[in-house]
Amino acid sequence: MADTAIPSGGPVDPAIIDDLVAASRILAKHGVLDAWGHVSIRHPKNPERYLLSRARAPALVSAEDIMEFDLDSNPVDQRGRRMFLERFIHGQAFRARPDVNAVVHSHSPTVIPFSVTGEPLKAISHIASFLVNGAPVFEIRDVGITQGLLVTNNQQGQALAKTLGDNPVALMRGHGTVVVAPDIQRAVHRALYTEVNAQQLAVARSFGRPITFIAPDEAHDPKRMIDSWEVWKAEAMKE
Amino acid sequence: MADTAIPSGGPVDPAIIDDLVAASRILAKHGVLDAWGHVSIRHPKNPERYLLSRARAPALVSAEDIMEFDLDSNPVDQRGRRMFLERFIHGQAFRARPDVNAVVHSHSPTVIPFSVTGEPLKAISHIASFLVNGAPVFEIRDVGITQGLLVTNNQQGQALAKTLGDNPVALMRGHGTVVVAPDIQRAVHRALYTEVNAQQLAVARSFGRPITFIAPDEAHDPKRMIDSWEVWKAEAMKE
Amino acid sequence: MADTAIPSGGPVDPAIIDDLVAASRILAKHGVLDAWGHVSIRHPKNPERYLLSRARAPALVSAEDIMEFDLDSNPVDQRGRRMFLERFIHGQAFRARPDVNAVVHSHSPTVIPFSVTGEPLKAISHIASFLVNGAPVFEIRDVGITQGLLVTNNQQGQALAKTLGDNPVALMRGHGTVVVAPDIQRAVHRALYTEVNAQQLAVARSFGRPITFIAPDEAHDPKRMIDSWEVWKAEAMKE
Amino acid sequence: MADTAIPSGGPVDPAIIDDLVAASRILAKHGVLDAWGHVSIRHPKNPERYLLSRARAPALVSAEDIMEFDLDSNPVDQRGRRMFLERFIHGQAFRARPDVNAVVHSHSPTVIPFSVTGEPLKAISHIASFLVNGAPVFEIRDVGITQGLLVTNNQQGQALAKTLGDNPVALMRGHGTVVVAPDIQRAVHRALYTEVNAQQLAVARSFGRPITFIAPDEAHDPKRMIDSWEVWKAEAMKE
Repeated sequence: MADTAIPSGGPVDPAIIDDLVAASRILAKHGVLDAWGHVSIRHPKNPERYLLSRARAPALVSAEDIMEFDLDSNPVDQRGRRMFLERFIHGQAFRARPDVNAVVHSHSPTVIPFSVTGEPLKAISHIASFLVNGAPVFEIRDVGITQGLLVTNNQQGQALAKTLGDNPVALMRGHGTVVVAPDIQRAVHRALYTEVNAQQLAVARSFGRPITFIAPDEAHDPKRMIDSWEVWKAEAMKE
Repeated sequence: MADTAIPSGGPVDPAIIDDLVAASRILAKHGVLDAWGHVSIRHPKNPERYLLSRARAPALVSAEDIMEFDLDSNPVDQRGRRMFLERFIHGQAFRARPDVNAVVHSHSPTVIPFSVTGEPLKAISHIASFLVNGAPVFEIRDVGITQGLLVTNNQQGQALAKTLGDNPVALMRGHGTVVVAPDIQRAVHRALYTEVNAQQLAVARSFGRPITFIAPDEAHDPKRMIDSWEVWKAEAMKE
Repeated sequence: MADTAIPSGGPVDPAIIDDLVAASRILAKHGVLDAWGHVSIRHPKNPERYLLSRARAPALVSAEDIMEFDLDSNPVDQRGRRMFLERFIHGQAFRARPDVNAVVHSHSPTVIPFSVTGEPLKAISHIASFLVNGAPVFEIRDVGITQGLLVTNNQQGQALAKTLGDNPVALMRGHGTVVVAPDIQRAVHRALYTEVNAQQLAVARSFGRPITFIAPDEAHDPKRMIDSWEVWKAEAMKE
Repeated sequence: MADTAIPSGGPVDPAIIDDLVAASRILAKHGVLDAWGHVSIRHPKNPERYLLSRARAPALVSAEDIMEFDLDSNPVDQRGRRMFLERFIHGQAFRARPDVNAVVHSHSPTVIPFSVTGEPLKAISHIASFLVNGAPVFEIRDVGITQGLLVTNNQQGQALAKTLGDNPVALMRGHGTVVVAPDIQRAVHRALYTEVNAQQLAVARSFGRPITFIAPDEAHDPKRMIDSWEVWKAEAMKE
């Protein structure tokens, strides 16, 4: 794999990198990303490239850590940097979903109980409207395991992208989530409120009463995330 | 809608604005308001006007963000500022309830499970005495939806105010709460302890035993919130 | 009530006041005390006097706020300071229990569900050994209510002390707790771990299996709280 | 017990002590260690010695607090320092398990409910793969109690090590955990994710559905903890 052979998508506006770094820190600050997990964006000038941090805890990621990859997840210019083993989640999601420009892989804590029980994770709050159709659960054994439940190659990444289909979120059994969106702001919103909706649904389930989920005609996909992005970024970057 | 045609209620004591800003930050700090949600007060000199931030995350609101509206939620002097889409919740609550001088709209996290199950949210703690008669649940479909479950016009705002009736709190199904009070201090108190009482009641319910709710003659509406306001404000404003 | 007629127990070592202030802030920092609640100690030189802050949120209490009371909860030298309405909890606990030198009244959040259901709050963790015999629940209606569930006079305070008996903790139905101990360090320990044990027991109950509680011969009352007091105080006072 | 008679394993690289201190603070910061609990490492030059703080709250431990012990938990050079009563947990774990180089004893809050109900604490998340075979529960009464549930001598420590067997984690009924690992980084990882997996499993259990646990061939023991250790240490040591 001669990574010098892969041409770059070109220089990226520092403001865009800045938002990618912020996304990583926001999700760490809110407990959606733990010491692992990662956020990527599609290269703004070349849809066949994506941008992702070198292997580093999300709370510590900064602009200099961002690397460029092709959709097979080969690095454009590795320069000896250690890479996330699971970057194939990102590459294959970008390949399968031309509408997607940002991907989050998390171990979102309250999603795990849903992933191992088959309890459907559907929206009960309008802020989690994106979960109106629930979230499919990826079973890695169906494609074959390599290192535990980790997604470590393109075949597994492709199978995960297939389970994701045209949904915004897929659960990974015993592992976490993959969350996709048209932009980084909505990817962060979706990753955050997947966790919040999971917490709320667990409480609602405990009452043992029928639950009114968000109906398809009630789902609302906000065009802009101005207000929330301003505060999330301000709070995450001041630390 | 020529908003220059709407006369202002007049200048407002900066100390009053300061408390409105504090209310917003207190509720953000305590997790009752997320990146959205809003707090308003009735104009102290003109009961036909109210004061509410421009569209901005509650944790970031400051004095310069406060705008003035009439009870139809037309801005007195917009000056190009972006407004909360859901300000009609406030205008119609002030119109329907002459006794109310402060309104909170939140996505209070633990209220959602109650709003989608019909599990009654009644006071089990004397600090949440205001919930002694429970909280009615607003179903926006009864009046018709426009943008998901959002309250985006006066008709919906009026229907919500009707559901609220003479209660201090109404739940909005799959969405959140509207909380009203005679003053900003008690509005903050009620918004905070609606969340706390919801958390406590969920635990109490899990025991599967009969629950002793606060009885009508035990409900206690404190006249002053001096102690709590002092600490809430001090902690929220130091950040 | 001529409070100038009540002689003081005499000056108190500032280090003792400092620990009383720390106790208040520790319990506020750990969420056991909210914007109300209070901690007192018996006067080190006169067992007929006790020391308690003027009415002020626990997180803000400092040495200058400490007042002196007799066991009927009359102030020794009020000087116009506003007093806690519920100070009778303290006075009557000190009167009924010569072995007690520190009292906490809290609205400890997870205690409320136990107080309104009759679910017994007994120790499942050895750190909460003091709850080995459970905690009696005080029903204020048995003595008569004045202001909601608040303890506002000596008669109610006395009835509460009677329910407490020789236990370290009593729950107050729909209200909170009273916690007593031979010294301020253990009072803080007990108030903290009453909350922790309540949280743990709620989880244990959810499994629907028989629970092994701490047995009487397993209960362990530490003589010294050196390690915990050092860290609790350091963390609470640095803010 | 003439502790001057016990020869030291020799001076230890300050970087190793630094990681031991960090481990203590990381686990305190994440709520796994409360005001008590302790972390130890085997002496890097002499397998018959181990290093553990003098009796001090984990959040306050620094390099000067580290003492050296033999595997009977006699101090090499006590110099009047107060020692942890329960250090025998460490000495006997190091003796029984040559593969172990780091030991944590915690009161990990959500582990208690599992320890007192017999509800099996098994891995549902791949990050907690080390719990693939569950965690045995130590019943101190089987060996005899001295001070409550505390492990205060070598006989009890040996019995605990026997219950631990070749597992990475044992629960101590009504008390907490002992966690062992080949290195300090993995000991911290295991202590943290024992708590996280316990929280997640409690939620999963509440759904009342069959649970898919991590299967033996899915368990994954990471060789390096570079990413997580970097962020955990950075966050814990900056305070």
